[in-house]
Amino acid sequence: MQAGFSFSIQSRQGKARAASYQTPHGLIETPAFVAVGTQASIKSLSPEQAKDAGTQVIFANTYHLYLRPGQDVVAKHGGVHKFMNWHAPVLTDSGGFQVFSLGASIEHGVGKIANIFPGEEGGILSSAAIRSKKGKSLVKIGEDEVRFRSHIDGSEHIFTPEKSISIQRQLGADIILAFDECTSPLHDKRYTKKSADRTHRWAKRCLDYSASHDPVHDYAQMLYGIVQGGAFQDVRTESAQVIASMPFDGIAIGGNLGNTLTDMYAILDWTIPELPDDKPRHLLGIGDIPSIFEAVERGVDTFDCVSPTRNARNGGLLKRFDDEGKTLDKFRINIRNAKFADDTRPIDEDCSCYTCKHYSRSYLRHLFKAGEQQAHSLATLHNLQFMADLMTEIRKSLHEGYFVDLKRDWLEREPAT
Amino acid sequence: MQAGFSFSIQSRQGKARAASYQTPHGLIETPAFVAVGTQASIKSLSPEQAKDAGTQVIFANTYHLYLRPGQDVVAKHGGVHKFMNWHAPVLTDSGGFQVFSLGASIEHGVGKIANIFPGEEGGILSSAAIRSKKGKSLVKIGEDEVRFRSHIDGSEHIFTPEKSISIQRQLGADIILAFDECTSPLHDKRYTKKSADRTHRWAKRCLDYSASHDPVHDYAQMLYGIVQGGAFQDVRTESAQVIASMPFDGIAIGGNLGNTLTDMYAILDWTIPELPDDKPRHLLGIGDIPSIFEAVERGVDTFDCVSPTRNARNGGLLKRFDDEGKTLDKFRINIRNAKFADDTRPIDEDCSCYTCKHYSRSYLRHLFKAGEQQAHSLATLHNLQFMADLMTEIRKSLHEGYFVDLKRDWLEREPAT
Repeated sequence: MQAGFSFSIQSRQGKARAASYQTPHGLIETPAFVAVGTQASIKSLSPEQAKDAGTQVIFANTYHLYLRPGQDVVAKHGGVHKFMNWHAPVLTDSGGFQVFSLGASIEHGVGKIANIFPGEEGGILSSAAIRSKKGKSLVKIGEDEVRFRSHIDGSEHIFTPEKSISIQRQLGADIILAFDECTSPLHDKRYTKKSADRTHRWAKRCLDYSASHDPVHDYAQMLYGIVQGGAFQDVRTESAQVIASMPFDGIAIGGNLGNTLTDMYAILDWTIPELPDDKPRHLLGIGDIPSIFEAVERGVDTFDCVSPTRNARNGGLLKRFDDEGKTLDKFRINIRNAKFADDTRPIDEDCSCYTCKHYSRSYLRHLFKAGEQQAHSLATLHNLQFMADLMTEIRKSLHEGYFVDLKRDWLEREPAT
Repeated sequence: MQAGFSFSIQSRQGKARAASYQTPHGLIETPAFVAVGTQASIKSLSPEQAKDAGTQVIFANTYHLYLRPGQDVVAKHGGVHKFMNWHAPVLTDSGGFQVFSLGASIEHGVGKIANIFPGEEGGILSSAAIRSKKGKSLVKIGEDEVRFRSHIDGSEHIFTPEKSISIQRQLGADIILAFDECTSPLHDKRYTKKSADRTHRWAKRCLDYSASHDPVHDYAQMLYGIVQGGAFQDVRTESAQVIASMPFDGIAIGGNLGNTLTDMYAILDWTIPELPDDKPRHLLGIGDIPSIFEAVERGVDTFDCVSPTRNARNGGLLKRFDDEGKTLDKFRINIRNAKFADDTRPIDEDCSCYTCKHYSRSYLRHLFKAGEQQAHSLATLHNLQFMADLMTEIRKSLHEGYFVDLKRDWLEREPAT
C-alpha cells in the first residue's frame, strides 16, 4: 500500500465487505459511490454542495482534462484537488475508455462504444482500427501506442501506457488507473483475448513507469490495474488472475460487462474470487441500484456512474417508493410530469437533502420547465444525497449483519395486482 | 407607510441619501442593488449563495411568473419567498415592461423594445397597437386593458391595472409596482404624453384596487407608482408631479430614459426634485457603475439590472482595475480570453467573494470553455459580490461624508498616454 493510504476491512457478510479507506485527501467509507466530475467539476454543484450531499470521492476523466485545460495547467495549480477546490479523494481513469469511445465517435455521429465497428488488423502502428461509419480511421491501436483524434477539434493525439500514467500523476488524483483497451460487446472472443493480453502488457508498463518515477505532487497515488476479458469466462478469469498477480494497489473491473445485468453478475462471479482480498476493488461505470446491491454482495467496494447526476439534469429524481408506498420503477420519478405542477410536497418527505428540506415538487418542475440552471443543481443534490444515503445504509447493514435482508427489501417487487 | 415597513434616512450628502429600509422579510440598507431573479430563481445560484454574496433584495418578474408557473401556484406555497426559499425582501414589477417588449417580440424576431414599432390608433379596445414586422398585432393597448400574447406558447392574455396588482398580491413580494405603459425611444412626444396620462389613470386604479382588498398573505406590501414621460422634460416633470401627489408607498422611475447616459442624468434631474423626500425611490433597469454613482448622487435609493448576472454568464467578470492598476473599460474582464489559460491568480486578489477565495482565473476559463454550469455560478457569485461591495462602499461614503470623492475616484479615467 502506498504511503498515506490504508484499506482496512471492518465488517463482512459473505463476500461483501465494508472498509475504511484512508487516502492523502481523506477517508472513504466503503462500499461507496463515486460521483462523476468529468471536467474537474461536478456538473451544476460547488464542491461544498456535493460534500454536503454526502459525496466522499469523485471521478475525473483523464482524456477530457488532457485535452482541456491540459495536465500542465492542473499541475501548476498543485493538482486537481486545488484546481477544482475539492479537498477530498479523487479518482482518475486512464483515458482509455474515452479514447476508444468518445474519441472515435462523438463528432462523427457513430454514438458510443456499442456503435463502433470492431477493429480490423493492419498497419505498422495499429493492430486494430476502429473506424467511423464513413470509413475514416479515428483510433489506431498499436502495441506501443494508441493514436486518436480529439472530439473537440479533431486534432491527432497519442496515448501510451506511460503517457497515461504521466498525465494522471500530473493531475494528481489519489487513485489512478492503468491504461487499458476497453473492448465492446461487438468484439469477438479472439479479439477480446488478444486485447486483454495487450492490456496486461500495458499494465506492466504502467507499473514500471510508476516505480521508476518520483511523485509529481507531495503525496503518493494508488495505482489500480484493470481486469478486462469481456463476457468470455476463460478470458475474464485469466485477466483477473494476471492483474491480481501484479503489484497493483487496487483492482478495477472494466470493459464489456455483457448485455444484461445477469451477464454482469456472472462476470463478477468469475472475476472477484481471483482477486486479492486485501486490495480495494472498483467497478467501472456502474451505478444502478440493483447492480450496486448485487456487486456489493459479490465483494465490490466502490462504484462510479454518470447516471445519478445525468438523470438529475433530465428531471429524473431518485426515489424508492411512489406516493402509495410502492417501489418505483427504476427508483425514480420524472419531475417534469404535469402532475407535479402544484404539488407543494418535497420530492421525498423522508429525504435529508437540501432540496427536499427547502423546495417543493412544484418549484422543481417550474425550474425545469422554465429552463433555470437551479433545476440541475437542486436535482443533482437530491440524487447525490440519495446515493450517499443508500451507501450509508448498505455500510450499516454490513456492520450490523443485515445486508442480505436490506438487499431483499430494496429489490423485491410487489407482485402485480 | 405600510405595516411592517419603515424607511429611515440615516445620512445625506447633497441630494444623495443612505437609508435603512425595513420590510416584513428583512432590512435593505440603501443605496442598494437589487439582483434579478426573473423566474423566481437567481440564475445559477441557490438563495444561500446569493445571500452570502451580499445580495439583500431580489427582483422577480410578474409577466414570467403569471405565465409560468402561475400566481395561484406561487400563492399556494405561501408566496414567492417560500416558493423559491428566499427569505429576504423581494420586489416584483407590474408585468407592463414585458407585455410591451417581450410579449410583442421574442417569438416574432423583432427583438426588444427599441425594435418595436410605435403604436397606431384604432379599435375599441386599443388606443395603440404594437405590431410585429410581419404586421400581426401582438399587443393591443386600451384604456381598460392590454391584450398580449405569451412568448412561450402564443396564447392570448389580458392584463388590467387591477389584474397586475391582484397577481402581484398573490405572488406576495414586499414591494410591488403599479401597472404602467413603458414607452420606447421611438414614440413621439404626443404619444408619450398620451401614454403617461393613461399610466396616471392606471396608477389610480392600482391604488383603488389595493385599498379595497385585504392582503392575500399575512403581511403588507409596498405599492410603488411609476414615473413615465420618456425623454421629454415637460411630460416627465408632469408625470413626476402626478405620481408624487398620489398615496403611493414609494416611487419608481421607469420607461424610456433616453438614448445616452447624459439623457438619463437629465431625466433624473427633472424627476427627483418633484418626488417626496420621505419615500423610497427605485430606478428601473439600470445597473452600470457610472449610472449608479450619478443616480445615487441625484437621490435614487435602489437599482435593478440583469447586467451583472447576465454578463457573468457570458464570462464578463466585474473588476475595477486591470493587473497594472488601470481602471478597466466597463469595469470588467472577459474570463474566456486565452491569456487566462494558465493564470493561477484569482479574478481579484482583494475580492472577498467565494469565487476569488477558492478559484483561479485559469479554472474559471476552463469551466467556460468546457461548458460547465459552475462557470455561471462562480461568475455570478463574483459579480453579485462586486455589486454588493460597491453599494456597501457607497453607503459608507454617505455615512462618512466622502461620497463625492468616492465617485470621482471610481469614474475619473487616467489620461491617455
